[in-house]
Amino acid sequence: MTIAETIRGLAARAKEAARNVAALDTGRKNRLLESMAEALLREQDAIRRENEKDLAAGRAKGLSSAMLDRLALSDKVMNSMVTGLREVAALPDPVGEIADLIKRPSGIVVGRMRIPLGVIGMIYESRPNVTVDAAALCLKSGNAILLRGGSEAIYSNLALARVLQDCLRAEGVDPAAIQVIPTTEREAVTEMLQLEELIDLIIPRGGEGLIRFVAENSRIPVLKHYKGVCHVFVDAGADFEMATRIVMNGKVQRPGVCNALETLLVHHEAAPAFLPQVGAALAAAGVEIRGCPETRSILPQAKEAAPTDWGKEFLDLILAVKVVPDLDAAMDHIVRYGSQHTESIVTNDYAHAQRFLREVDASAVMVNASTRFNDGGQFGLGAEIGISTTKLHAYGPMGLKELTTQKFIVYGEGQIRA
Amino acid sequence: MTIAETIRGLAARAKEAARNVAALDTGRKNRLLESMAEALLREQDAIRRENEKDLAAGRAKGLSSAMLDRLALSDKVMNSMVTGLREVAALPDPVGEIADLIKRPSGIVVGRMRIPLGVIGMIYESRPNVTVDAAALCLKSGNAILLRGGSEAIYSNLALARVLQDCLRAEGVDPAAIQVIPTTEREAVTEMLQLEELIDLIIPRGGEGLIRFVAENSRIPVLKHYKGVCHVFVDAGADFEMATRIVMNGKVQRPGVCNALETLLVHHEAAPAFLPQVGAALAAAGVEIRGCPETRSILPQAKEAAPTDWGKEFLDLILAVKVVPDLDAAMDHIVRYGSQHTESIVTNDYAHAQRFLREVDASAVMVNASTRFNDGGQFGLGAEIGISTTKLHAYGPMGLKELTTQKFIVYGEGQIRA
Repeated sequence: MTIAETIRGLAARAKEAARNVAALDTGRKNRLLESMAEALLREQDAIRRENEKDLAAGRAKGLSSAMLDRLALSDKVMNSMVTGLREVAALPDPVGEIADLIKRPSGIVVGRMRIPLGVIGMIYESRPNVTVDAAALCLKSGNAILLRGGSEAIYSNLALARVLQDCLRAEGVDPAAIQVIPTTEREAVTEMLQLEELIDLIIPRGGEGLIRFVAENSRIPVLKHYKGVCHVFVDAGADFEMATRIVMNGKVQRPGVCNALETLLVHHEAAPAFLPQVGAALAAAGVEIRGCPETRSILPQAKEAAPTDWGKEFLDLILAVKVVPDLDAAMDHIVRYGSQHTESIVTNDYAHAQRFLREVDASAVMVNASTRFNDGGQFGLGAEIGISTTKLHAYGPMGLKELTTQKFIVYGEGQIRA
Repeated sequence: MTIAETIRGLAARAKEAARNVAALDTGRKNRLLESMAEALLREQDAIRRENEKDLAAGRAKGLSSAMLDRLALSDKVMNSMVTGLREVAALPDPVGEIADLIKRPSGIVVGRMRIPLGVIGMIYESRPNVTVDAAALCLKSGNAILLRGGSEAIYSNLALARVLQDCLRAEGVDPAAIQVIPTTEREAVTEMLQLEELIDLIIPRGGEGLIRFVAENSRIPVLKHYKGVCHVFVDAGADFEMATRIVMNGKVQRPGVCNALETLLVHHEAAPAFLPQVGAALAAAGVEIRGCPETRSILPQAKEAAPTDWGKEFLDLILAVKVVPDLDAAMDHIVRYGSQHTESIVTNDYAHAQRFLREVDASAVMVNASTRFNDGGQFGLGAEIGISTTKLHAYGPMGLKELTTQKFIVYGEGQIRA
């Protein structure tokens, strides 16, 4: 069998299984998730042995210790997968919900029923726990999932999928509802992306290179974000202590994630008093400042920002800082350099807060809050399968609801159209 | 300037204008729509002169009288455009609506604000009234629109766009919010479909060939339906009079549209009594029946259905008829041959009605109602810009709300993430 035939076969089985999982009731899905949590605990030694093969191969290939860390199914990671399964079981089931029922002049009653999307294709890099997290969200939302993880995690991913599939089989559910692609060739991804009649949605998670490759080669709709270039704008008259707290949290708490702060914009009236205050806090935390000329006139220790530093996702203890004349200039900067991920204003001006919320185009727009809050858990969606910075279908964190759609339903009594 | 440069220039101006129209308040948008209605009436002679050029060219090219009819801006069509503009003005404005506000344990208040998508690219065939209808819906939903109509309507489309743009200009709104692509080369479409950073959504309207071309060549998300192969399943124990009424309405009232009925499925227990009744009504209306062997044993006048008649969009007074053993067989047939457009069951069995509504995957699923109801106006969405049979973003008729998305908004008081 060629790779193309293998992938098509897996996707065709996933489509068959999708009809099966779409029809499962909530109790049965929750029991399945609980049995999966138990099975992971019960079979952790076997899973660890497969994970060890990946780790050994990774060490032989000379992977960095950070990469090996992400690959390892430590006790902590195993426990987080088990907890994750139970948390997804506890979330409300979106499938079958009927909304917006209305009686029309013709006499028909029209509403919308929430339904699964069908088959989700997930393409991701090394962390094997994504296999379980994504499978749980797809199962609960009534979707089948076809998983294509990184080649360095192949043994771990296959072992995890086997445990989950055994649980499906034991409950009489089609095990093809959760499948890991067993081949590591890149061609498998390219083939997967052509199967528009079998796969309904592609979700890539990983570096910008992977995501661009997927977006450029996919015939299937893709929900993605390339990067998070998040800004905080500190307005004139803002509470500088609050602003410092929000800047520090955005930049320092976890600099390597997509909702971390990358550029600070400061109203020029606020700059003389605020920049020394935030500058001292940033320096104490070891953050390198790359400033515009006006910033550097106030903070001489700041480096000169290169033109490429605006709009850059540092993912590191580096912050670009720019002084702007007013709110409009701040919003213009965000339009030009932002990534439609997360933008925040620190202000005490009611009209400015309202304008910023209304006019800034990003998946999450905030007033007086840290950009780090852009997260499914923090927003109350429960676990998230990714964050979308595309506007179609979902914009922002994607939870269970975003893995579904709505169809129209009509209750009639024999009505015909006049 | 090459065609590619022309198209890119128009799209870039549309993107600029999108920021402008996104910020318009409801009153201003409604006044604009009203002024457009007045301007169309005032300038109808000038518009008709341009339309006459298209008609003359069409006659010279030997277009069919049906095609010329669709092209003509008759009094009736002019009035329907004017009425359409006023109806869109009367619809509620979805932009800026804030929903699902919730206070999270961290203290932040999270909600979703409805926002425009940005720039809509519309690719459509001959009817020039689509130019005005689509522009009105995009303006009201805060989007800019780039219109690419059929080459045979180019003078009409440009004349209509000029009138609409004059109204925008008079109100101080960027006229690039409504633009008709002034070149008729096919290359213009191909170029348009590459501009993923400038155009947010493509909506094609026309024949299956056009839609497939767009879907296969677009780097931009496409909301589309290829065809409507709608089924009615008449269950055992159904009210045969009601079933006949629904079948006749679906097949005969307007056979050339996508929500017309194409295949009738009949429960084998219902067949002996129902088929003669519906067969007589169909024959009286001049409908050709193409039946399965069991159908033909009851209705000897029926032709033999070819295998390709199942799943065929006849768009004509032709109906495929099949007798099936039970509800499951009917749903299996629909899975195999349906187009996820509109499916209806005629039944008096409560459990069957519920199963059909839940399990059938189509943009609209109905009980005891004509498939002809799948329409934005009938469903209460107001005017529609198209019907989507793709599940991402919108499934079914697309009104104003489907031309928008939601971003997350956060009201904080200085909260940071722990």
